[in-house]
Amino acid sequence: MKKIYLDHSATSPLDREVFEEMKPYFSLKFGNASSLHSFGREAYEAVERGRERVAKVLNCKPNEVFFTSGGTEADNWALKGVALASKGKKHIITSSIEHHAVLHTCQYLEKNGYEVTYLPVDGYGFVKPEDVEDAVRKDTFIISVMHANNEIGTIEPIEEIGRIAREKGVYFHSDGVQSFCKIPTDVNKLNVDMFSISAHKFYGPKGIGALYIREGTTLEPLLHGGGHERGMRSGTENVPGIVGLGAASEIGSKRMERDAEKMIALRDRLVRETLKIKDSWLNGHPVKRLPNNAHFCFSLIEGESLILYLDEKGIAASTGSACSSKSLEPSHVLLRIGLKHEEAHGSLRITLGRENTREEMDYMLKVLPEQVEKLRELSPFKTKKQLSSFKSTE
Amino acid sequence: MKKIYLDHSATSPLDREVFEEMKPYFSLKFGNASSLHSFGREAYEAVERGRERVAKVLNCKPNEVFFTSGGTEADNWALKGVALASKGKKHIITSSIEHHAVLHTCQYLEKNGYEVTYLPVDGYGFVKPEDVEDAVRKDTFIISVMHANNEIGTIEPIEEIGRIAREKGVYFHSDGVQSFCKIPTDVNKLNVDMFSISAHKFYGPKGIGALYIREGTTLEPLLHGGGHERGMRSGTENVPGIVGLGAASEIGSKRMERDAEKMIALRDRLVRETLKIKDSWLNGHPVKRLPNNAHFCFSLIEGESLILYLDEKGIAASTGSACSSKSLEPSHVLLRIGLKHEEAHGSLRITLGRENTREEMDYMLKVLPEQVEKLRELSPFKTKKQLSSFKSTE
Repeated sequence: MKKIYLDHSATSPLDREVFEEMKPYFSLKFGNASSLHSFGREAYEAVERGRERVAKVLNCKPNEVFFTSGGTEADNWALKGVALASKGKKHIITSSIEHHAVLHTCQYLEKNGYEVTYLPVDGYGFVKPEDVEDAVRKDTFIISVMHANNEIGTIEPIEEIGRIAREKGVYFHSDGVQSFCKIPTDVNKLNVDMFSISAHKFYGPKGIGALYIREGTTLEPLLHGGGHERGMRSGTENVPGIVGLGAASEIGSKRMERDAEKMIALRDRLVRETLKIKDSWLNGHPVKRLPNNAHFCFSLIEGESLILYLDEKGIAASTGSACSSKSLEPSHVLLRIGLKHEEAHGSLRITLGRENTREEMDYMLKVLPEQVEKLRELSPFKTKKQLSSFKSTE
Repeated sequence: MKKIYLDHSATSPLDREVFEEMKPYFSLKFGNASSLHSFGREAYEAVERGRERVAKVLNCKPNEVFFTSGGTEADNWALKGVALASKGKKHIITSSIEHHAVLHTCQYLEKNGYEVTYLPVDGYGFVKPEDVEDAVRKDTFIISVMHANNEIGTIEPIEEIGRIAREKGVYFHSDGVQSFCKIPTDVNKLNVDMFSISAHKFYGPKGIGALYIREGTTLEPLLHGGGHERGMRSGTENVPGIVGLGAASEIGSKRMERDAEKMIALRDRLVRETLKIKDSWLNGHPVKRLPNNAHFCFSLIEGESLILYLDEKGIAASTGSACSSKSLEPSHVLLRIGLKHEEAHGSLRITLGRENTREEMDYMLKVLPEQVEKLRELSPFKTKKQLSSFKSTE
């Protein structure tokens, strides 16, 4: 059975060209980038080249890019690092639909004496900039609002939030894990002071990411040790990973526009056709969303069961965040945009990639209604009355 | 020019066989290990197989192995994680010759209200177990002493220190980054509660490591987020990295004995011959040291210059820790074993690998005395009197 992968926001395959660039750095040019000899210098140059390539996509200086083990570490570092450096200040502003790497870090900080305002969102998942403005206190030291939501794909009004943060003299961090190489991420246009990225979300390798830190931003390291990354992030540099991150950034940014165009066309048709299924609706905004994201709910269905049914037909999709896929709790994002528990359970996230085709969408559109139907047949609540009590796109 | 790599404690090339095992997990079996569909399950199985292979070498249960981004994160996590979980207790015991991943973490904790005892070492670099015992206080929550020193190769009396820790009811962590797959690391024989390892030190990939955590040990996570590693270490699993760590562990442990035998023979001859150079001496213990480590000092020489001279002749070596190779400070390890500043500056660390040959040692033994001689010729302190005022092996 041919397999169709429609879960690119969970992770993406490593680009073959990126892999070719990485290969020499495993067993041949394998030096430690801190070593003085030629093996070390070769590795060091590869690391700095990777830094330049990432910086170019962010439109920042290379020395503002700090490599981490991924998006989670970058998010943790931004929040905890600034918290540790902002003695006397104790207030954080974030949104209620952040990735858990931000939300759980905030909860950890709350347990350690910090105070957090979790901003509400509207039905599309938008944070209101005026809410951010109203929430700022004298002791607010950071605002963290994601660039694009990992479940429903909503693109937040980052530029405006960043402007407010700057006016108020508060640092602004944004989790860009889902947006980098999918939509423009010029850190100067976005008015961010810190920005998290993760290579495996855009055809780079797993285990590597970066935190953009605007020059002049004061934060403490999260990992102490040998003083790598100019003392800010210790640990032997993951040279092949950094080469891969750099290559994936360059390739991803070059392809971004035409990939987005292609994916939007496929996605929009998928959305139109899928919404013909009775008692289904699209979550997030119809237009202000990631080009590769479609997020649906189907009433009277367990999303997990649908994922397994689709998997049997060779289609890989998810209910929402991969991290939470084994949890029985409904998505916090869906609850915050106003869905009821029973509605939130019936979710399906489709996230397209570069290689997906119209034929694959055709297959999906053939299989999906059948599987939804089959699951509803099995549902203990399948009376007409209950179906119609659910939200509908009509 | 053929290159000879003699800096395996800085990093090692990725084993070809290990790389072959990793390859499918980059672009083919690329799933997120948390995803419910078949791509995810395939990745999950690879992660758990990696965990089992590491556990086998440590002689622990697979669920006691937690993957990290490397040794630095593992060391940071052990110390900070237990500190956060040991409310009310504030005392740490460590040695004064630990890797900076431990020392700088301790210094960070000191700045945050904790108290640290840095134990002295003798001329070989040994920590005295009775010093550990004497240092334990009622509020001591962790003892952290490395298994083998990364510069001079000294193997510490971990079993005994572990016994004392257990008697006193204090957690015992050991940085095993240099020892794993070089000497036996059965965590039960070593009496450790936590043990840090890093794949790239034993022919695995960079950017992946693990912390062994004995069942029942209470510590907080360092990275918060999606709840990976049973809630203890969030962040999308680095699947190819974990596959590589597992494979390198299995291969490394199988080869360990015969590799050690071979390296000891090469190393011991290298030491004997090198010590014929006037005013040179071996640092660390002649026998209780890592099988691949030789660490010399040459009076009247700058180690950094020697490294660059050797590099020009195709030989990659180091003065000590790669992390500190760009620092102008003399090694803290050499100062603690009693060398003077000017002595400590003239150091050379040779760390052999599996592939090094007798012919390479011959070349090294031809080149090294010439380069030492050349540097001494250039030295402003080259009078006979000053030479003889330095420590000698005679």
